Amino acid sequence: GTKTAITVAYGDGIGPEIMTATLRILEAAGAQIEPHVIEIGERVYARGHTAGIEPSAWDSLRSTKVFLKAPITTPQGGGFKSLNVTIRKGLGLYANVRPCRSYSPFVATKHPVMDVVIVRENEEDLYAGIEHRQTDEVYQCLKLISRPGTEKVVRYAFEYAKANGRKKVTCFTKDNIMKLTDGLFHKVFEEVAADYPDIENEHWIVDIGAAKLADTPEAFDVVVLPNLYGDILSDVAAQIAGSVGLAGSANIGEHGAMFEAIHGSAPRRAGQDVANPSGLLLGAVMMLVHIGQGDVAERVHNAWLRTLEDGVHTYDIFKEGVSRERVGTSAFADA
Amino acid sequence: GTKTAITVAYGDGIGPEIMTATLRILEAAGAQIEPHVIEIGERVYARGHTAGIEPSAWDSLRSTKVFLKAPITTPQGGGFKSLNVTIRKGLGLYANVRPCRSYSPFVATKHPVMDVVIVRENEEDLYAGIEHRQTDEVYQCLKLISRPGTEKVVRYAFEYAKANGRKKVTCFTKDNIMKLTDGLFHKVFEEVAADYPDIENEHWIVDIGAAKLADTPEAFDVVVLPNLYGDILSDVAAQIAGSVGLAGSANIGEHGAMFEAIHGSAPRRAGQDVANPSGLLLGAVMMLVHIGQGDVAERVHNAWLRTLEDGVHTYDIFKEGVSRERVGTSAFADA
Ligand SMILES: CC(C)[C@H](C(=O)O)[C@@H](O)C(=O)O
Ligand SMILES: CC(C)[C@H](C(=O)O)[C@@H](O)C(=O)O
Repeated sequence: GTKTAITVAYGDGIGPEIMTATLRILEAAGAQIEPHVIEIGERVYARGHTAGIEPSAWDSLRSTKVFLKAPITTPQGGGFKSLNVTIRKGLGLYANVRPCRSYSPFVATKHPVMDVVIVRENEEDLYAGIEHRQTDEVYQCLKLISRPGTEKVVRYAFEYAKANGRKKVTCFTKDNIMKLTDGLFHKVFEEVAADYPDIENEHWIVDIGAAKLADTPEAFDVVVLPNLYGDILSDVAAQIAGSVGLAGSANIGEHGAMFEAIHGSAPRRAGQDVANPSGLLLGAVMMLVHIGQGDVAERVHNAWLRTLEDGVHTYDIFKEGVSRERVGTSAFADA
Repeated sequence: GTKTAITVAYGDGIGPEIMTATLRILEAAGAQIEPHVIEIGERVYARGHTAGIEPSAWDSLRSTKVFLKAPITTPQGGGFKSLNVTIRKGLGLYANVRPCRSYSPFVATKHPVMDVVIVRENEEDLYAGIEHRQTDEVYQCLKLISRPGTEKVVRYAFEYAKANGRKKVTCFTKDNIMKLTDGLFHKVFEEVAADYPDIENEHWIVDIGAAKLADTPEAFDVVVLPNLYGDILSDVAAQIAGSVGLAGSANIGEHGAMFEAIHGSAPRRAGQDVANPSGLLLGAVMMLVHIGQGDVAERVHNAWLRTLEDGVHTYDIFKEGVSRERVGTSAFADA
């Protein structure tokens, strides 16, 4: 059959190891993909490109419209904008979908029955990156919420719920304090919800909503929320389900999509063949579904589940009495 | 002995019930206090004061400098600023101290050994309340972080750690994205930390820090953080320790202090004699320590602990097999 061209970046830190493992698994499962490798991150910064990405990489992204991306490292300091944010905004990836579920009893968790999908707005909020030094003593950052941006992500959340047989969409905001910005998000949520009478909807103030999510995640199904709350609460949900190392994400736009792990590049673990490739692999599974290779996606997902169930675990999820064998990145991929 | 004058507000929703219970317990324990009751919240709004507080109430607060406050309800809608925020800012209450600990095995929790004190910046961040309608489609809110505001709360956190025999202070920010605002908070944290060589310090990016807090709260001791993260994560910490209903807070300023529960006015539970008065009561215990009546504080705290240990529990913490008797507000106070 014809192969689908995808753009691939090996990233920084543990990136190359988990990408190698992931591509090896996809190939073994028969994925019909043709990777175009681009360089982004540390090595591009080192060549003096302060954006961390070169024009030719954008060309590849705009032509394949599908991006499988390993974690990258943005240098510290005021001169560098987050490359993750640059790419999300550059490609108009408005929705960040992060399924967070537990795999009990195969992976240790205090929340054995959770299955939450976080749909995070992905371009606005404080991530607009507009910051300002008022005086030496006072700094400001602009939070931005727009009706079109909110409407797109909220509608995506309801469409996702519908397509995946999910029963409820919950919205979190802090609109008792931010009556205009978060108020708009909440209002648009209610407007869009009215178009989906078969799907339950509810709204929580983010503080108590977060508390309930961390304590009783089984009470949630799909959760849609502004960018920063989504950043924090997707890490919380993934971690209490088992590990942030077990969650992949799909960044969805009108003209393309990016798939990645939700965790970072973990430079301290780099080069040791210990990292868990599961997050990126599950991102790749979502990618396969996106490009119409759902059968391969299922094969990969089943093989992965089977490995977890066999107790073949990387260090981050290894637990005496639950796991059977402690393996590194490549042995996990072999399994 | 002479009594200390304190300002008291009975608040809205479940406020009057839990305040009545709290004052009854303080009296029974021999607290030497003279409550000056002020009205704030719903009834004041209803009289047409859009601030929810009258000038005479400010006079009382400025004269007693000690405020025991029940939860209040701010009306919804763009015309009303949060009264909680108005009071915190009006009195310059820069640090919001929220101890979150578990009481295992007496109260059910998945995190039996946690004992975290959240020290939340209390006047700045997005709570500055500066919002703006750019167009019908675009709204903005200003996040503000200042050096003096940050320095005060961080220093308070380290002084608190020192005075209470605590070993570590952790800071959460999102300074990989908000390099100026959260960057300033992080930088000031490191500057102040250098003055306390005997206390360990560490910094986490708020997303992964929150994940770790929700999953492994026993890894934290004192946590200092900007206002909004503190709002969300103190609710998370309190809830996973047992219940948001079990946490009190001290709002500390240079010229006064306010003590309250961390939860809201729960209008749907009002008037039913079911609410848990523990949050406000623990706020009152902190107040007693603050006004130099530590012996009374200890008596109240011990009696309260004993009640929990006896399994005499309100609905929010009642659990078959852990609790013994399900009681309402006044019966809990009696116990
Ligand atoms: C690396 C960082 C910019 C990023 C974010 O904050 O969005 C990460 O935490 C994530 O959640 O994908
Ligand atoms: C009621 C609300 C304004 C308040 C806050 O956000 O600070 C509350 O959630 C709290 O944590 O005390």
